[in-house]
Amino acid sequence: MLNWMLLFVPVTVLLEYANPSGHVWIFIASGLAIIPLAGWMGRATEEVASYTGEGVGGLLNATFGNAAELIIGVVALNSGLYEVVKASLIGSIIGNVLLVLGAAMLAGGVKFSVQSYNAQAARSQATMLTLAATALMGLAVFRSQVGTGYATLEINLSVAIACMLIAGYALNLCFELITHKTWFAGERSESAEPTRWSLRQALLVLVGATVLVAWMSEILVGAIEPATHALGLNFLFVGVFVVAILGNAAEHATAVQAAMKNRMDLSLSIAIGSSVQIALFVAPVLVLFSHVVGPAPMDLIFRPGLVFSVFIAMLITAQVAGNGESDWLKGAQLLAVYIILGLLFFFAPVPAMMAHGPR
Amino acid sequence: MLNWMLLFVPVTVLLEYANPSGHVWIFIASGLAIIPLAGWMGRATEEVASYTGEGVGGLLNATFGNAAELIIGVVALNSGLYEVVKASLIGSIIGNVLLVLGAAMLAGGVKFSVQSYNAQAARSQATMLTLAATALMGLAVFRSQVGTGYATLEINLSVAIACMLIAGYALNLCFELITHKTWFAGERSESAEPTRWSLRQALLVLVGATVLVAWMSEILVGAIEPATHALGLNFLFVGVFVVAILGNAAEHATAVQAAMKNRMDLSLSIAIGSSVQIALFVAPVLVLFSHVVGPAPMDLIFRPGLVFSVFIAMLITAQVAGNGESDWLKGAQLLAVYIILGLLFFFAPVPAMMAHGPR
Amino acid sequence: MLNWMLLFVPVTVLLEYANPSGHVWIFIASGLAIIPLAGWMGRATEEVASYTGEGVGGLLNATFGNAAELIIGVVALNSGLYEVVKASLIGSIIGNVLLVLGAAMLAGGVKFSVQSYNAQAARSQATMLTLAATALMGLAVFRSQVGTGYATLEINLSVAIACMLIAGYALNLCFELITHKTWFAGERSESAEPTRWSLRQALLVLVGATVLVAWMSEILVGAIEPATHALGLNFLFVGVFVVAILGNAAEHATAVQAAMKNRMDLSLSIAIGSSVQIALFVAPVLVLFSHVVGPAPMDLIFRPGLVFSVFIAMLITAQVAGNGESDWLKGAQLLAVYIILGLLFFFAPVPAMMAHGPR
Repeated sequence: MLNWMLLFVPVTVLLEYANPSGHVWIFIASGLAIIPLAGWMGRATEEVASYTGEGVGGLLNATFGNAAELIIGVVALNSGLYEVVKASLIGSIIGNVLLVLGAAMLAGGVKFSVQSYNAQAARSQATMLTLAATALMGLAVFRSQVGTGYATLEINLSVAIACMLIAGYALNLCFELITHKTWFAGERSESAEPTRWSLRQALLVLVGATVLVAWMSEILVGAIEPATHALGLNFLFVGVFVVAILGNAAEHATAVQAAMKNRMDLSLSIAIGSSVQIALFVAPVLVLFSHVVGPAPMDLIFRPGLVFSVFIAMLITAQVAGNGESDWLKGAQLLAVYIILGLLFFFAPVPAMMAHGPR
Repeated sequence: MLNWMLLFVPVTVLLEYANPSGHVWIFIASGLAIIPLAGWMGRATEEVASYTGEGVGGLLNATFGNAAELIIGVVALNSGLYEVVKASLIGSIIGNVLLVLGAAMLAGGVKFSVQSYNAQAARSQATMLTLAATALMGLAVFRSQVGTGYATLEINLSVAIACMLIAGYALNLCFELITHKTWFAGERSESAEPTRWSLRQALLVLVGATVLVAWMSEILVGAIEPATHALGLNFLFVGVFVVAILGNAAEHATAVQAAMKNRMDLSLSIAIGSSVQIALFVAPVLVLFSHVVGPAPMDLIFRPGLVFSVFIAMLITAQVAGNGESDWLKGAQLLAVYIILGLLFFFAPVPAMMAHGPR
Repeated sequence: MLNWMLLFVPVTVLLEYANPSGHVWIFIASGLAIIPLAGWMGRATEEVASYTGEGVGGLLNATFGNAAELIIGVVALNSGLYEVVKASLIGSIIGNVLLVLGAAMLAGGVKFSVQSYNAQAARSQATMLTLAATALMGLAVFRSQVGTGYATLEINLSVAIACMLIAGYALNLCFELITHKTWFAGERSESAEPTRWSLRQALLVLVGATVLVAWMSEILVGAIEPATHALGLNFLFVGVFVVAILGNAAEHATAVQAAMKNRMDLSLSIAIGSSVQIALFVAPVLVLFSHVVGPAPMDLIFRPGLVFSVFIAMLITAQVAGNGESDWLKGAQLLAVYIILGLLFFFAPVPAMMAHGPR
């Protein structure tokens, strides 16, 4: 479906070498190139998973479902662009529950007056987001109370909390895939109607797409700062909204299509599930990775505006997803919150928000 | 019912001209005079609406239901009393969900052990409040992060967010009046048992009451500051609690009566609906009006204490209204939160809270 | 069951006189000695209650259910250790809903796939916690907005709000014991299967255990500061986590046992009920007592980190307890939040958190 967008891969490479100072075009092209590649990675992961049996398959999907975000993160870490990493992580968390879920509920709600889904599963996922929000808010309160000058301590604390979040994610997987899998049944199985590639073919596609995503990410990350300066945009706005929208385009399409087929369980599972995966797996894993790949370790302490965004996203997700029914107004409400957050970041004065600033 | 209170209209005029320095008496008399006038405005709006058919009628009710607040706001804007406008807006938002709904649930709950209402409608309205709270909290976080010195930018951002809130309100009306009107059915229709005025009569009463409300508001607004100084009271306390209680007296009476007749759907619709209307329609409209009528544009950035009050009111409304059942303890809980917020504002030292202060 | 732990009573006395500088050992021994004594106090209270009829009995249980915390608090007040009092109050509030309820839901959920309980009762108790959190958050916002230099005013405000909280607690008792007792039925009655002591015997045990708890508390409180210094620990961590875990050991055991017998109503009643009792009865009563027993009155203004902890505990309790069903993941989520808060306090640098600091 998005295969024509693969054209942006050679376009990006061409631009990067032919016109290396056209940062804005490079940024756009590389961002668009990642969309179909992320789709192919997801597809190949499902194909590989179909050879491994249900448990391992679920684990593969749950771990590599946001592999594109993980790769972008590692590449940006490697360049020391911690603020970009953090902004795009928060952008993915709030984008999935506000933009993706909002668009899905709106699109589904326009067609169906009321749509139902498993409220228990939705509540349990929303509470996982609360867990992540607690960690981020707690660290922000810590920083505000303790003051600066405790960098080592904050790094150690971040590692400890990152481990807790990963443990929470592991328990969540165990709940979804083993002990309470009936609540989540039908979602995953039905989404995979593979054309049955061979295992060899699937692995080749997976490796190929991964390499290409890494390459495009490197170009994208290198272009973010010059491009945002050239456009006179706030880099936080770009990180939280533009990069995250590109990175989640695949989830977006699938979740909206599922909602329009009145399969809200699948839709919520993709949208809230991706947020949970970014917040409790990708973000803490990047904190741990930063001790290996980055120029210096990254902490889990985010700017107050980013923490606020996650808090609000968590709060309204819990309200909206708690009763097992959705309608188009719920979708519109989620989108409105997303737009309001977007306006706040868009209007934020550029000098107050430098990528390498004192925070 | 409240017609004898119309006596306060001539009393106010008399006091204003006979004893212009008796600010406290003028404040009280004009405040009491607004109560029956607001009642007549509401009545006349319903009568006019009965001639227009359901859709337009609902729109009229939804738009002019809080016309008194809107008029007081415009008059105060015109005098440049932005802090008074903001305090009374927040007072109306929290007063409707904490005081009015609390009193209704308490009064109804004393008579009936458990009362039921449409949980879906209540949840959807509570989420509209979350939308408004997000905007107010987001702007407060923006101010705290960006610092001062960005007045123009904050005005532009406020206009953008005000437009988003009005759009959200329009979608909400569309949901209530068109796509999901069955959830809200019975509420509005039953509340109107008119004596059938002629359209001409209804329009005359509407215009007359509006003119008188505007006149009384002008006198009230002029007396607020000298009266609060004379009483040694904090003007924020007066704005948030005293003015708001006067302005919502009509809603209060109707919501409590409905609850005592076990018609909780109507009661919630009035209480939460009024809060939603103030937060998503009156407040943003005043921000837009301020570019025309005020000495300078007004932003949507409120003091932290006011934003906190809205956040708490939103949070407890979502908790209390979410499951479709009310009892007297829920009412008492809402009232207790209202009293605690009242104590906080009552005790706030006067010098820290000037009407024309830096914020 | 815990009777062998009574051995720690003489051990504590021995250590206190034989080795008064061994603060760490004295701290541990006195803390362990309080556990069985608190159990005996609870048992004796139930026995006395069985002689008084249901209403008074429920009142006795509700008032003396956390008598050990109250005694520790009074003793610490008397020594002027306000920060220790405040830390252990917050520790009890969050410990009961996060640790005790989390462990109960986890233990019960491992045995039973899904456990049910009365959602209305749980929601009403969770909203009582919201009331308490509103008071604490409101006072913290007050302090941050008003600034320092208003100590007398803050004391008066604290007394007013403490009275409101106690009034709220009284209404809650009235709801639980009188008007809606069927929601809470079965819980209390079944938990008391007394061996039928005589009234005289019960009163003797009650007085004896109370005296011993007071003695052990005095020793415990005296040892907290030197022991935490000797261990290089942050006193806030000790107050919030260590002291509170010791003080709630009895509730912990009972709530977990009830959950494993699939009696979740009893389990929730103990866990959330204890939090409500500490927040709306013990804490405000200590504020009032401080005008009599302490060297100076204590206010209700807590450090931001403590207020944040209560806010989070309230929020996740409302999410988890709202739908009448629990599973092991909910328990794990509560425990994970508890551990994350614990990490934050554990890592907080010691110098920033003095017991007699400016706040």
